[in-house]
Amino acid sequence: MPEYRKDPITNRWVIIASERSNRPMDKVVSTVSKKEFCPFDSGNEHLTPPEILAFRPENSKPNDENWWLRVVPNKFPAVTQDTLPKLIKNGIYFSIEGYGYHEVIIETPEHNSTIAYMSNFEVEEIIWAYLQRFNEIKKDKKIKYVQIFKNYGRNAGASLSHPHSQLIATPIIPIFIEEELKGAKTYFNIKKRCIFCSIIQQEKEEKVRIIEENDSFISFEPFAPRFPYETWIIPKEHSSNFGDLNTKLVKNFAKILKTTLLRLNILLGDIPYNYMIHTSPFDNIENHFYHWHLEIIPRLTNAAGFEWGSGFFINSVSPENAAQNLKSLEEGLL
Amino acid sequence: MPEYRKDPITNRWVIIASERSNRPMDKVVSTVSKKEFCPFDSGNEHLTPPEILAFRPENSKPNDENWWLRVVPNKFPAVTQDTLPKLIKNGIYFSIEGYGYHEVIIETPEHNSTIAYMSNFEVEEIIWAYLQRFNEIKKDKKIKYVQIFKNYGRNAGASLSHPHSQLIATPIIPIFIEEELKGAKTYFNIKKRCIFCSIIQQEKEEKVRIIEENDSFISFEPFAPRFPYETWIIPKEHSSNFGDLNTKLVKNFAKILKTTLLRLNILLGDIPYNYMIHTSPFDNIENHFYHWHLEIIPRLTNAAGFEWGSGFFINSVSPENAAQNLKSLEEGLL
Repeated sequence: MPEYRKDPITNRWVIIASERSNRPMDKVVSTVSKKEFCPFDSGNEHLTPPEILAFRPENSKPNDENWWLRVVPNKFPAVTQDTLPKLIKNGIYFSIEGYGYHEVIIETPEHNSTIAYMSNFEVEEIIWAYLQRFNEIKKDKKIKYVQIFKNYGRNAGASLSHPHSQLIATPIIPIFIEEELKGAKTYFNIKKRCIFCSIIQQEKEEKVRIIEENDSFISFEPFAPRFPYETWIIPKEHSSNFGDLNTKLVKNFAKILKTTLLRLNILLGDIPYNYMIHTSPFDNIENHFYHWHLEIIPRLTNAAGFEWGSGFFINSVSPENAAQNLKSLEEGLL
Repeated sequence: MPEYRKDPITNRWVIIASERSNRPMDKVVSTVSKKEFCPFDSGNEHLTPPEILAFRPENSKPNDENWWLRVVPNKFPAVTQDTLPKLIKNGIYFSIEGYGYHEVIIETPEHNSTIAYMSNFEVEEIIWAYLQRFNEIKKDKKIKYVQIFKNYGRNAGASLSHPHSQLIATPIIPIFIEEELKGAKTYFNIKKRCIFCSIIQQEKEEKVRIIEENDSFISFEPFAPRFPYETWIIPKEHSSNFGDLNTKLVKNFAKILKTTLLRLNILLGDIPYNYMIHTSPFDNIENHFYHWHLEIIPRLTNAAGFEWGSGFFINSVSPENAAQNLKSLEEGLL
């Protein structure tokens, strides 16, 4: 029987309708393009703008080919530092000039690698790169938010198949973050507690949507997921600021990110997905009501007219079933 | 130079970044499947659930093959009337049982037809079907909103290529509508005026985003569109209730819908798109602050991690350029 479910943070409703998994053509196959002429490969450093950050041996030079991770400006940026975030008013319309950062984290020189199959060290290095750029950009007082995200596979929006993530830093707090903050503040004002901490507690009691747990993190299917197999990873201890991660947390975050993506890969194949990190904005980064986390959305289905028209999502897989499937994979496979 | 732009209704921001149109692989090609075994074809009426409404000659019988438009329940419904919209509470989570309507409007018996190339009469009949179902479902006091929408092409979520639209009626007002209502109410409280009427006035003064105008409607590119060539059609006279359309308005709406889709088709080819009608919810359907309209979103690009993570959209075509391109098509082609 289908169900409407309300995300307790944003008050966004979704419809859980398992029956729809029977309908024809709900799946879209990923088509990651083959290696051809890749600007992210080792030896092709001249094809990217000069690097902003790189993890490389001490004796190597910037932009030469000895590296195991590079961060470069996006060659086709959505926003740049060539302007200032000036507000422009025109009648009822407002605009702000497109000041910001748009960077690419080249995760490895290995063209055909993917996080699910990387070593723990490699994934940790990716997290360290996120952290370093996040905390560096935080010093720019014009920036309010840094969205770190990954597009994997062409149907998830990746134009290049070489393993990479991106970040876009903006002088505006994105609406989804605003919505989460608003919901979290409202809850905190009533309950004197972080809503994410309450979710973690209830999930640990119910045990039907948790996939995996380590010392510092759990991965679970949210109660009201927009997409089949939407999966969140969240620190168990309250923490509003992604930039606060220490060495132990980086290790445990890298580990659960890798195994969660591996579970999805084993169960569903080499599917396209996006993930994104949600954290408190810079202007109130340490607080008691918000809790940073990572959201993974496999791109098994396309949002269509109903979703784009209403903000209501039809999801053909219940989170309880998805969690059960992801959890029950044999330990030997992981 | 890229720009952030705020939608004055929902306060949603987008980034207008024309430079990004140069980047590789921003376009996705539509693949509408060929006619094979189509449940919406004339002669195959037994393959759909019994019709709810049909436009057919007076002497023909329900579900026989003489018809020019049929409305049937979706065979794989997201919501049904087999339950009641009962609220269920479980700790911090709420759900409501999946009561609602999910219907398919089969627009024509012609398998390879499409609105852009239909006769005016055919398009008017589609609008009449929308109206009849909308006003009929309005009698069900458990329903708060009817989302009417169309998925055209596989990449827009259409699982069947035969021309059809859909409606989903729910006991919940969708969040996008809530957001529009909230923004419109706030504006009305300050300005004592409908914000959509203000937009129409400014667009008519600026003349840079309007594509077409007739006695009753304009079609234009919104100031802060999420997608390249996102196009809205709106009645020029204030009207909050889509269900209020009279014969003259139906004629003029059908005409501008057809020519707007034809412009998109001539300029961009047989691209996938969605459209959806936004109207006031049933509980306050006649009011001074909201204004019904139709939104068309061509599916030339895929929303990726940034969009899904932030609610922020990167659009590689400015609405002024899009409007100019759509407007300047030779009259002879239309």
